[in-house]
Amino acid sequence: MIFSTLELNKNEPIYTQLERHILEGIRKGELTKGSKLPSTREASKFLNVSRNSVIAAYEELEGRAVITTKRGKGTFVSIDGHKESFDYDIDWNKKVNFYGNTLRNLDIIKSELSYEKGMISFKSIAPEEDLFNVDDFKRALLDAWNFEQENLLNYGYAKGYKPLIDYFTHYMESKGVSTYNKDILITNGFTEAFDIILSSLTKEGDVILCEEPTHNTALKIMKSHKLKIVQIPMDKDGIKLKELEEAIKKYSPSFGYFIPSYNNPTGIVTKGERRKELMRLCREYKVPIIEDGFNEELLYSSSPAKPLAALGGEGNGVIYIGSLSKILFPGLRIGWILGDLNLIDTLESVKRGRTIHSSFLDQSAFYYYLKSGAFNRYLRNVRKFYKDKYNLVMESIEKYIDYDYVTGEGGLHVFIKLKNSLDARKLLDICYKRGVIFMSGDIFFENGQGKDSLRIGFGRVKDEDIVKGIKIIGEGIRELS
Amino acid sequence: MIFSTLELNKNEPIYTQLERHILEGIRKGELTKGSKLPSTREASKFLNVSRNSVIAAYEELEGRAVITTKRGKGTFVSIDGHKESFDYDIDWNKKVNFYGNTLRNLDIIKSELSYEKGMISFKSIAPEEDLFNVDDFKRALLDAWNFEQENLLNYGYAKGYKPLIDYFTHYMESKGVSTYNKDILITNGFTEAFDIILSSLTKEGDVILCEEPTHNTALKIMKSHKLKIVQIPMDKDGIKLKELEEAIKKYSPSFGYFIPSYNNPTGIVTKGERRKELMRLCREYKVPIIEDGFNEELLYSSSPAKPLAALGGEGNGVIYIGSLSKILFPGLRIGWILGDLNLIDTLESVKRGRTIHSSFLDQSAFYYYLKSGAFNRYLRNVRKFYKDKYNLVMESIEKYIDYDYVTGEGGLHVFIKLKNSLDARKLLDICYKRGVIFMSGDIFFENGQGKDSLRIGFGRVKDEDIVKGIKIIGEGIRELS
Repeated sequence: MIFSTLELNKNEPIYTQLERHILEGIRKGELTKGSKLPSTREASKFLNVSRNSVIAAYEELEGRAVITTKRGKGTFVSIDGHKESFDYDIDWNKKVNFYGNTLRNLDIIKSELSYEKGMISFKSIAPEEDLFNVDDFKRALLDAWNFEQENLLNYGYAKGYKPLIDYFTHYMESKGVSTYNKDILITNGFTEAFDIILSSLTKEGDVILCEEPTHNTALKIMKSHKLKIVQIPMDKDGIKLKELEEAIKKYSPSFGYFIPSYNNPTGIVTKGERRKELMRLCREYKVPIIEDGFNEELLYSSSPAKPLAALGGEGNGVIYIGSLSKILFPGLRIGWILGDLNLIDTLESVKRGRTIHSSFLDQSAFYYYLKSGAFNRYLRNVRKFYKDKYNLVMESIEKYIDYDYVTGEGGLHVFIKLKNSLDARKLLDICYKRGVIFMSGDIFFENGQGKDSLRIGFGRVKDEDIVKGIKIIGEGIRELS
Repeated sequence: MIFSTLELNKNEPIYTQLERHILEGIRKGELTKGSKLPSTREASKFLNVSRNSVIAAYEELEGRAVITTKRGKGTFVSIDGHKESFDYDIDWNKKVNFYGNTLRNLDIIKSELSYEKGMISFKSIAPEEDLFNVDDFKRALLDAWNFEQENLLNYGYAKGYKPLIDYFTHYMESKGVSTYNKDILITNGFTEAFDIILSSLTKEGDVILCEEPTHNTALKIMKSHKLKIVQIPMDKDGIKLKELEEAIKKYSPSFGYFIPSYNNPTGIVTKGERRKELMRLCREYKVPIIEDGFNEELLYSSSPAKPLAALGGEGNGVIYIGSLSKILFPGLRIGWILGDLNLIDTLESVKRGRTIHSSFLDQSAFYYYLKSGAFNRYLRNVRKFYKDKYNLVMESIEKYIDYDYVTGEGGLHVFIKLKNSLDARKLLDICYKRGVIFMSGDIFFENGQGKDSLRIGFGRVKDEDIVKGIKIIGEGIRELS
């Protein structure tokens, strides 16, 4: 009796356990082609489970043609599990190339200390999902479904879902960006957008300028493409212009990659005048810009700072990467590239060669969500929510932490430079033991600098945990000093 | 009066037209900061549109802080549109590298004759969307939503949605594949899976063996990675073994890429014995295999042919790429890689560095769809549907077409080799004028061969159009002969 060796567990439906047990029996040769299985009645009695579970398992296996029921005769195994083997092994580690190794070795999810349940985590800069208005989203999802139906399920277009492209086109126009002679490609978030641009427009050894410090994922992708990364220091108004100009002259960079709104990790917003000066320099030396619109939406509407892409007017020198998914529905993976019309045509082909297109179901649901006005309501809501959290974070830092300086003007994170070159990794070790976790600053620097700094992401941390967690960090600092 | 230059069109909601007109006015300098806008009453009267449309436009612009309403005073422009310009242009064509150019130049959607409305198209091998059971899918979507809610909307895991990974694990086991020491990575379909594998495990000049002819997208991706492609001829049982062994000896290939079930474009199913011989050779010479499970699900369940991954037993030599999305919901972009545990760990990091993860909404909906049993019902249904179409195609070819040989044993396409080196592109030109389109065979060959062949994709062609279309192709052949 095949089921005499089966031990049922409680964590899985009975029928899948029965199914797997039969499949294993076939593979091990305990059941051969033609073997008769117990009847569903016998099996249910023997195992003391409902007969429906056995029937479900048998039906499933029959659907896959693993077993066959002959009327009046019983159920039989219809495949041969005892097979000749052609096993061989490859040493995959040796085959992984520079690209694969770089992305593996710089995958901070696998190297950094990880969050454990019950901890206070300042590590993430993901948005607070309790703020997502799930009813609005569900309505949008159903709108998309009702309007498009099976169209969403067959192949779509690499460039993206047309109504969403049109929406983002108007959206960019409302930020003052000229879309004349420009076009939009929908991507799987910022990451795919940035990777597609670098893959298609750079070659090994090209120099790319960026802020110091800068977005860790961007650093990782630049390294995977063998680019030479030159980081330019910032002050409270943004990237330093003198250093920028010197670097441009020295390196003739292939690109400048900038995050003018809420630089990650420092939270510095590049000021309006600084943006203009930055553009003036890039225009003078014809340096193409990749602008990362990261969290621009959280800027208060009164803020006079326009995207670099807006300052670039009708020129094609700026490629803008947008991604609402940093503040809304990261799980959907929707971002976009706005750039020169012909360039987007090429990048569209690259996108097609990589992922064909982004999910049309998601794009359509996202479109109906945006169109409903829910996004604007959401933004008003979260700006207030995060602003309050930000104020609490800054108060708590003032109260508990002995810092060299703190940067960040809102958004979802601030950045702390510690005094006396205190080692943030040692601090992290201490805090981790006490249930507090944050991001050590060194990962945002190209050359092992930033060891005395840390990023505090606060979007998803409860108010009382903000105070408690920052207090614990402060205590750790005093112990280490 | 700003609206005196506005001409309304009927294809777009009034309020978006109003909105855009105001934004353009600001950009052109016709409206400057502080300009007063007409009241909603004035504007609606002047334009002869409903006041609600004007209110909607103003509210939207107010939400974006472009205009402000001061109680009792009116509505005013609150941003400065007259900006200094920092326009500059980059010659992007010159910056596009080998990778970008390859994917652009080999993008057949942009180079091949395109379908126009009313044509009979044998070009596509996409599934017939009328067969999708949209009610089953909608139920699955709602199940996913109700069970997971906002979890689906925040960041997920690069490896994929756990229940779906488990499902595919069992699914592969039911195909006789050992999952011991193996793992699964969810990808955006076959394309991303193949691209991630080649990106991470090959280097310029590496030799990759594949069938001749083979999947055009795979050829494109291999070329974009600068691989040397060596195609091995096939006969009706699959790839030719003598030629395969010679090529292995000559080139010491980095990989073999095979499509054992319904090779694309020939529709040849590699027979059971041939699969074993193929595995024997690859084991002997330690050639790693990338198996493309393309349309395996359409094989009749009585078919004895197992995936190469099943023949590979507990060895790690075979990397299997699965994608149900060739027959079900291509718009969702869901596929998977099954391979060595540690290798998948690396590829997971690569996936994270490219698209973070695939949409969790889609993965979850897909999981609930599969789990419900709807997929098995769907398969039974479509196998019958496509089989009937296949038979009609073969009958019509016999009746109307003077061929050298025809291959294809079901699936969604067959492949015709024409007599006397007849030029399939000339044939396509003739047929196109008569409203029939198909895929010229040369795109499935590496070196400009296959000019006298064509692929007939029939999944989405109506029965009467199959007969009519193939008749027209037959007439074209006679004219050209």
